[in-house]
Amino acid sequence: MSKLKIGIFGAGCVGSGLLNVLTQTQKIDAVVKTVVAKNPSKKRRINFPVSYNPLDILEDPEINVVVELISDSSEAYQLIKTSLLKGKHVITANKKVLAEHLTELISIADSANSSLLYEGAVGGSIPIIRNLEEYYNNDNLTKIEGIVNGTTNYILTKANQGISYADALIEAQAKGFAEENPTLDVDGFDPKFKLVLLLKHAFGVSVTQDKIFHVGIRQIKPFDVQYALDNDFRIKLLATAYKVDQKLHAIVAPHFVAKNHSAYHVDDEFNAIIVNAELADKQLFFGKGAGSYPTASAVLSDLSALENNYRYNYKKTKDTRVYFSQDTLLKVYISASKLENILKIKFEQIVHQYTGPGHSYLIGLVCLKELNKIDWNYRSDVSLLIFPESNLLEQQIINNKSNFEIYEN
Amino acid sequence: MSKLKIGIFGAGCVGSGLLNVLTQTQKIDAVVKTVVAKNPSKKRRINFPVSYNPLDILEDPEINVVVELISDSSEAYQLIKTSLLKGKHVITANKKVLAEHLTELISIADSANSSLLYEGAVGGSIPIIRNLEEYYNNDNLTKIEGIVNGTTNYILTKANQGISYADALIEAQAKGFAEENPTLDVDGFDPKFKLVLLLKHAFGVSVTQDKIFHVGIRQIKPFDVQYALDNDFRIKLLATAYKVDQKLHAIVAPHFVAKNHSAYHVDDEFNAIIVNAELADKQLFFGKGAGSYPTASAVLSDLSALENNYRYNYKKTKDTRVYFSQDTLLKVYISASKLENILKIKFEQIVHQYTGPGHSYLIGLVCLKELNKIDWNYRSDVSLLIFPESNLLEQQIINNKSNFEIYEN
Repeated sequence: MSKLKIGIFGAGCVGSGLLNVLTQTQKIDAVVKTVVAKNPSKKRRINFPVSYNPLDILEDPEINVVVELISDSSEAYQLIKTSLLKGKHVITANKKVLAEHLTELISIADSANSSLLYEGAVGGSIPIIRNLEEYYNNDNLTKIEGIVNGTTNYILTKANQGISYADALIEAQAKGFAEENPTLDVDGFDPKFKLVLLLKHAFGVSVTQDKIFHVGIRQIKPFDVQYALDNDFRIKLLATAYKVDQKLHAIVAPHFVAKNHSAYHVDDEFNAIIVNAELADKQLFFGKGAGSYPTASAVLSDLSALENNYRYNYKKTKDTRVYFSQDTLLKVYISASKLENILKIKFEQIVHQYTGPGHSYLIGLVCLKELNKIDWNYRSDVSLLIFPESNLLEQQIINNKSNFEIYEN
Repeated sequence: MSKLKIGIFGAGCVGSGLLNVLTQTQKIDAVVKTVVAKNPSKKRRINFPVSYNPLDILEDPEINVVVELISDSSEAYQLIKTSLLKGKHVITANKKVLAEHLTELISIADSANSSLLYEGAVGGSIPIIRNLEEYYNNDNLTKIEGIVNGTTNYILTKANQGISYADALIEAQAKGFAEENPTLDVDGFDPKFKLVLLLKHAFGVSVTQDKIFHVGIRQIKPFDVQYALDNDFRIKLLATAYKVDQKLHAIVAPHFVAKNHSAYHVDDEFNAIIVNAELADKQLFFGKGAGSYPTASAVLSDLSALENNYRYNYKKTKDTRVYFSQDTLLKVYISASKLENILKIKFEQIVHQYTGPGHSYLIGLVCLKELNKIDWNYRSDVSLLIFPESNLLEQQIINNKSNFEIYEN
């Protein structure tokens, strides 16, 4: 395409990192024309004139690429949409906007013949979207498991080492890994947004984020951590999806991860995505999931792709046989201070039961549909954790043609 | 481009895997026209007519893509060259041919306006070449470390568990991970060939394989393994390259890898490549480095790329400032049954010395140029292992502007 003339919305952490990279190197044939920020009273460390009028980008016919890096998601949605409608290519890392409006935005981009790229939206510097698009596009994927939220992985790493959730959160906030209001991260929304994008590119399935079951890490208690330690597990917040025949299941929840699981050693603020493919077998991508330069590197790779007129092909969406389903059994651990609080949940089968003086837990099989009836993030007395072999369980049930076979470790 | 009409040389493990995939699915718009194998007396399990005349592919003007998957490297070289000269695109997984003739083959492909792709040549199913080309093409890479040979990684995994080298090799051979004549693997040739390709795509540097220092794992003794265990290390055969300023160093050698090193948990026949980038930070790619379907998946992704007229851009080669050098100090461990055998090696500085009844070792700093004067694979009484922080050592020396600063763990 003709030379990239870029307008950047947002002069925060990622925006300023990108600006540094683009103005200090001549690595790609691109020029930043305009930067628009929101708050004129904010002091900025960037060496570039800043406008506060979005129209300076939106109505500039010379600008052919818009990089959207602001935090307000409804504003971001409007900016992305308007830019695409005006025939500008858009690069964004805004997973919330994408998870909520992906189908619409893709369709606008298609009609306007413009490109919508978002490598930075999942796994920061990990090139997962492009690899799903370009490398696994002819392979049949059976499972994806991702640690795609650095904040919660940092907190869980500390929790696995015996530090309390509250202390770990404070530490994460001090290090800049966690927001002041950490809800989107710790309650599992952020990884769910990312999972929506993974489902689209890995399995060709379009699901809005509200359809995906999620529970975060806020409710995990010291005795849950102790249970994990006693059984040689680490607790990891996984965004996971698995396909059995053409049925696709997806959840975001804390999981007990054993030593032989590739996610076991993914610690601190790092992210990792594990892809299971029929041909390529098991693959893991590991890297920095956030941060100014790692995310800027993802945006830079999108800009570089635009130089070659790159667009996502969404090849997997052409296979319309795959469908989203909540009709699967999960092997779960549910704990609470009192046993009766757990017994209200409809287990298909109870495998193990423990009742102690201050806390109790049950391990058993529960249907995903049942789990989805409860907002676990608001049930502070009850913890829910998953055993990650649920896809094997599903496969075994199918093979045995029985609904209530137990898959045991 | 027009529909892919494929000629396959080789009907062995990878060839038959690929054939299965291509004939059983309609994932890409390609048709296999001809398969040429070498040995007419060999029984084959493929459901496809096999020719034994290479001209059936080379002189067929309809065939526009040649997939070369044979074991004999001088024959493979001729087939690749002839195919390219005839304007056919070539996909190969033959790292030896590429490591020895890359510059020539790229130049032939350029003149003939054909494409030469080889994703399967490094890391099997791990999409490392494409990611270096497409994702890290604008990022400044500082270091690459690869476990890129599954055979030796399997053997070392067993050795780290206390099984002898000889027994582990037999086990690897029984499992099909090691060849009957394992020299190319255990003496470090195979990972060196792959490193040549990584150097080209990661740093834009063209080096023939004979210029790269390599030593394998054959000479590692039980007391070396014990030293590793006592110090919480695992021994891993790393193909590694690091750039300090514009100076690029590369070696293949067994390394002591500590628990916090990403290669520590890469076990059995798995491969991993760790990329350190200025923007993207540390990234790891992990997957199956060999095998019928994993390698076929890499070939399939190359075929899919050809559908979009894909060619490697070799963007990094345009930066001519980076140069290959052996002028660096490494922190090494050298052991032998007798101390005097070690003392013949020119240490710049000795950090630690141990003399025991049956064996001795020295830890110290040695110049890479000095190491390169010895063929360590043929010095069966002497073991050489490297501490992986050599690049930090180099950086520290530069910062201190002294040649003989010691970097200690």
